Amino acid sequence: VTELYFGVDFGGTSVKLGIVNGTGEVLARESIPSRIELGPEDLIARIAEACEKLVVKHRLDRGTFRGAGIGSPGPVDLDAGTIVTACNLPVSFDNFSIRDSLSKQLNLPTVFDNDANVACWGEYWLDGMGVISDMVLFTLGTGLGGGVICGGELVHGCTGNAAELGHMIVRPGGRVCTCGQRGCLETYSSATHIAAIANEALDGGRKSALADYRTQHGPVTSKDVFDFAMRGDALAGEVVDGAAEALGLALVSLRHIVEPARGVLAGGVIQAGEMLAQRVKKFYDQYMWTQHPEPMEICLARLGTDAGIIGAAGIAVHALKK
Amino acid sequence: VTELYFGVDFGGTSVKLGIVNGTGEVLARESIPSRIELGPEDLIARIAEACEKLVVKHRLDRGTFRGAGIGSPGPVDLDAGTIVTACNLPVSFDNFSIRDSLSKQLNLPTVFDNDANVACWGEYWLDGMGVISDMVLFTLGTGLGGGVICGGELVHGCTGNAAELGHMIVRPGGRVCTCGQRGCLETYSSATHIAAIANEALDGGRKSALADYRTQHGPVTSKDVFDFAMRGDALAGEVVDGAAEALGLALVSLRHIVEPARGVLAGGVIQAGEMLAQRVKKFYDQYMWTQHPEPMEICLARLGTDAGIIGAAGIAVHALKK
Repeated sequence: VTELYFGVDFGGTSVKLGIVNGTGEVLARESIPSRIELGPEDLIARIAEACEKLVVKHRLDRGTFRGAGIGSPGPVDLDAGTIVTACNLPVSFDNFSIRDSLSKQLNLPTVFDNDANVACWGEYWLDGMGVISDMVLFTLGTGLGGGVICGGELVHGCTGNAAELGHMIVRPGGRVCTCGQRGCLETYSSATHIAAIANEALDGGRKSALADYRTQHGPVTSKDVFDFAMRGDALAGEVVDGAAEALGLALVSLRHIVEPARGVLAGGVIQAGEMLAQRVKKFYDQYMWTQHPEPMEICLARLGTDAGIIGAAGIAVHALKK
Repeated sequence: VTELYFGVDFGGTSVKLGIVNGTGEVLARESIPSRIELGPEDLIARIAEACEKLVVKHRLDRGTFRGAGIGSPGPVDLDAGTIVTACNLPVSFDNFSIRDSLSKQLNLPTVFDNDANVACWGEYWLDGMGVISDMVLFTLGTGLGGGVICGGELVHGCTGNAAELGHMIVRPGGRVCTCGQRGCLETYSSATHIAAIANEALDGGRKSALADYRTQHGPVTSKDVFDFAMRGDALAGEVVDGAAEALGLALVSLRHIVEPARGVLAGGVIQAGEMLAQRVKKFYDQYMWTQHPEPMEICLARLGTDAGIIGAAGIAVHALKK
């Protein structure tokens, strides 16, 4: 009998949820609006309802469900199964027990982690497990999150907030980060900062095809930067290189700290495609020591929009096996 | 019945070995010259002989010995139980199976790791286990090594060479490291570079009480730098601050990556004492994000010269429990 799992990917705008089997195949998926203004209890009730509807719709045997996993914005308290406080959610979510509430509604053991760790586990489960045991993943979006797997397990750290890879300091005294530090990886390689660096250069009078484009279309986005870099614009190319260089530097340090076999780039920014991965790899090779070769596989995430569903189901599969 | 373990700390000059019980007490210790020029087989035979003599001398029951652990300079191949190639050892040691050879001579299960990991495990075992699960340790000596513990286990990485913390890049484009990188932590915080930075400043004509001292005593050592910093010399103070700042920066990044509860400073440089730990802590607090408090315990190693023996026995105790 196939064992089935619910995978839930909770974001500020929408909740993606799906039914996943023990080998990571998505049998059904659905997306519902988060409507976070209605509060966490309403949200969990609607998630559970959507899960049950999906079972019925696809004529699956509810008795073969073994568990559920849910990924959420952080920081999270893993022991309590709560979001501590997330800047993009109403205060009613603070310390609300997402995990236990969902577990009760679905009447299934439920596992909980932050969204970046969940995405990392999804990529690892379907593309790494059995081949490698050590991996890092960057989620390159509005912010920059991450996941770290050592010896086949996600690294959670002493308060469950490990793998905040966006806040590694790659350039001491560098760009100011909203976190209060300077020179964070996030200030070079997140979508927000890729766009900001380009706009700041244009504000400073830097010549680029992006200048005319901005006059017509408004502030440059990270997608614009990648598009213009592809067409050979010098400024755009420099900004992409700056983002890739910061990631390359971070990966050299990460290699020496936890020695991952693979570094995975995920999140919206990777729509830029192989251009980004290739440039990160170039900088990694350039900065890496020469005393003995330490090649590292640097690649793009492969699960696409199902990553959150698959990863969430995956942490449940993994936790319930133990 | 007390279960006993041999702990062996193999260094280029001497081998420290001891008999340790299951709670980390050293019941007997001995030091023998390494005489590495005689080759690895001779070395292992002399280690085993010294171990057996120690049992007899202290009238211990050889039947209560459960295992042995040995720490060695790296890089090591943990699966094979060999030193891959160590720059300070004759080539006869390359790929010699230290672990299996010692295991055969002692007729005991034997566990092997690099010396920094062993030191890290020793500190964790006697001072952290049961209290914390996540820790990093720096060995500040001629070079700069490290150990990383996540979730109560040493992190080894994909080829067993994780926790090379001296080669985290803390200042891109910074000081040249023998490894081929620039801006490595080792180039600011190892004994070698603390001395070198002071000597370079003096060569450049920098005024300091160290200048006269050097004229009389020859090149400044890291100990001299700490001594003069204690007495208020400005240059010496700056060099110590530079070493502490690099460690503080590294600890901020490490906190975001693996989230240790504790950062431990070990190795010869910590003879400088609390002055060093306090300065590292000051820089950690200064560079750490302000979005929510993440205080970290930063302290000096406590096991002193027994660290290698205790840690080596400790990895055996831990591995054999599993």
